[in-house]
Amino acid sequence: MLGANNSLQNAGAEGDTRTLRLKPESLQPIGSFKLRGAANMVAARLEEARRQGIVTHSSGNHGQGVAYAARSHGIKATVVVPDVAPQVKIDAMRALGAELVLVQGGERLSSTQQLVEEHGLLLVPPFDAPEIIAGQGTIGLEIAADWPEVETILVPVGGGGLASGVAVAAKKLLPDAKVIGVEPELAAETRESLRKGVLTPWPTEQTYQTIADGVRTAPSELTFAHLRAYLDDIITVTEDEILAAVNTLAREAHLIAEPSGALTTAAFLFHQSELPPNRHHAAVVSGGNIDTALLARILAA
Amino acid sequence: MLGANNSLQNAGAEGDTRTLRLKPESLQPIGSFKLRGAANMVAARLEEARRQGIVTHSSGNHGQGVAYAARSHGIKATVVVPDVAPQVKIDAMRALGAELVLVQGGERLSSTQQLVEEHGLLLVPPFDAPEIIAGQGTIGLEIAADWPEVETILVPVGGGGLASGVAVAAKKLLPDAKVIGVEPELAAETRESLRKGVLTPWPTEQTYQTIADGVRTAPSELTFAHLRAYLDDIITVTEDEILAAVNTLAREAHLIAEPSGALTTAAFLFHQSELPPNRHHAAVVSGGNIDTALLARILAA
Repeated sequence: MLGANNSLQNAGAEGDTRTLRLKPESLQPIGSFKLRGAANMVAARLEEARRQGIVTHSSGNHGQGVAYAARSHGIKATVVVPDVAPQVKIDAMRALGAELVLVQGGERLSSTQQLVEEHGLLLVPPFDAPEIIAGQGTIGLEIAADWPEVETILVPVGGGGLASGVAVAAKKLLPDAKVIGVEPELAAETRESLRKGVLTPWPTEQTYQTIADGVRTAPSELTFAHLRAYLDDIITVTEDEILAAVNTLAREAHLIAEPSGALTTAAFLFHQSELPPNRHHAAVVSGGNIDTALLARILAA
Repeated sequence: MLGANNSLQNAGAEGDTRTLRLKPESLQPIGSFKLRGAANMVAARLEEARRQGIVTHSSGNHGQGVAYAARSHGIKATVVVPDVAPQVKIDAMRALGAELVLVQGGERLSSTQQLVEEHGLLLVPPFDAPEIIAGQGTIGLEIAADWPEVETILVPVGGGGLASGVAVAAKKLLPDAKVIGVEPELAAETRESLRKGVLTPWPTEQTYQTIADGVRTAPSELTFAHLRAYLDDIITVTEDEILAAVNTLAREAHLIAEPSGALTTAAFLFHQSELPPNRHHAAVVSGGNIDTALLARILAA
């Protein structure tokens, strides 16, 4: 068989000594990596989940993961959704049978906590739980298994569950590999937090300005501890670079990425000088749930 | 690890008892399945290819496959290209180092023959050779290995190399599976040929009307013999159905398909009553090399 590798696509140009391979989580059943953590936590806490029902808060992808995992066990899921979430993600969560509670961006945590207290629901958080981090970390296990020659792994950083899990797995299996987080300039709270050595959340009025809706949240103490211990660096990218990377992924790799999913490709394309001087790069394309009207505008630009 | 299957994506809706899994050849390095046959033939005839140089004719995808395979061995490739080929494919062949000869659609075969006779080049044809058919057939081997429960395999039919190879492989490994070809209504010469029992090519003025530029050619005697022996049926789809399938693949499966690559999904979506009454369907998404301006228009519609 020919050397097609459907889990890590080669998007590197000939003559370029640096290679980028993609880990396309956009091709998961729900269009993002979030299924991994949610399914792992629901499976690990199945009796509680069945008895109590499940609640979470999400701008969309994690909510789809929870809804998908809950449905597979016949459990009811409630998702608290910030009202600025993309319509495509709202529709997808509803299609998976979740009950949605739309709130303003700043109220997602308090509204969720209220539902936990009033109805005794089991919280399946987007990132702040060991079971979630372990589930997302299976991406790191797969990258190490598929491509042990990888030298730099690029991973988007929002709440930090994905980056924590991938970094732990990669550092355990490939101790010499560098794991680099990528954030939008407009929501670079993890970079600032790592530099200061203390969690420094930004106001949601600030972080909600990035188009990368999947990474508008700050880490928790749990994920921040992982990132301090295992992440080698964080790079930030601009909004224009994110859109250009969505375009490049469509044209060159035939993959549909949402803005958060294109962060890592943007870092490879536009921030070479800030990356370790390595040859073999893997980029986690975290999801593909982009409004098609936005994708059409990006492709037509 | 969760049940993501990156080689056969599940695009079936919940509650639908019929399942569609996709074989996304759009994710090959050149964005289509054509690399398989070209690489197999160049490898099988390597001494002649090195001594004589290579020529082929192609609207784009096969030309990219030949150019890619030739480059990997340091061999020069010449590609005769009909002047209506999409610009994105012309650019891609040039980027892979091929020398292009642009001709009118009806002259591609005669111009190629002339180059063979004048310069002694080795012809690596788009489909009319056992090595090409065997290479494309590796898709059938992989589908059978990945999903032995498959009951119906949908494959696009142009020159018939892909359909021949997939059908031979599938029928050998999964004798009970049905292999169904799919053609555009506007270029349904294989369906007519199979019904008449004799090769019945249509004029290029007719077949060049379909937007599915990868399947505008008729089978050869060699591929027609395979299709008569191994294909269970042929379904035709309209131009509107092809565009709708491109849209659905982008929205539901996050895959970018070119029109020819969306034929099989169109057959699943819009021609259920003509398909065998099976549950497990695999569709070969043969390529993703679509002009992004066209894709933007389809997504915005």
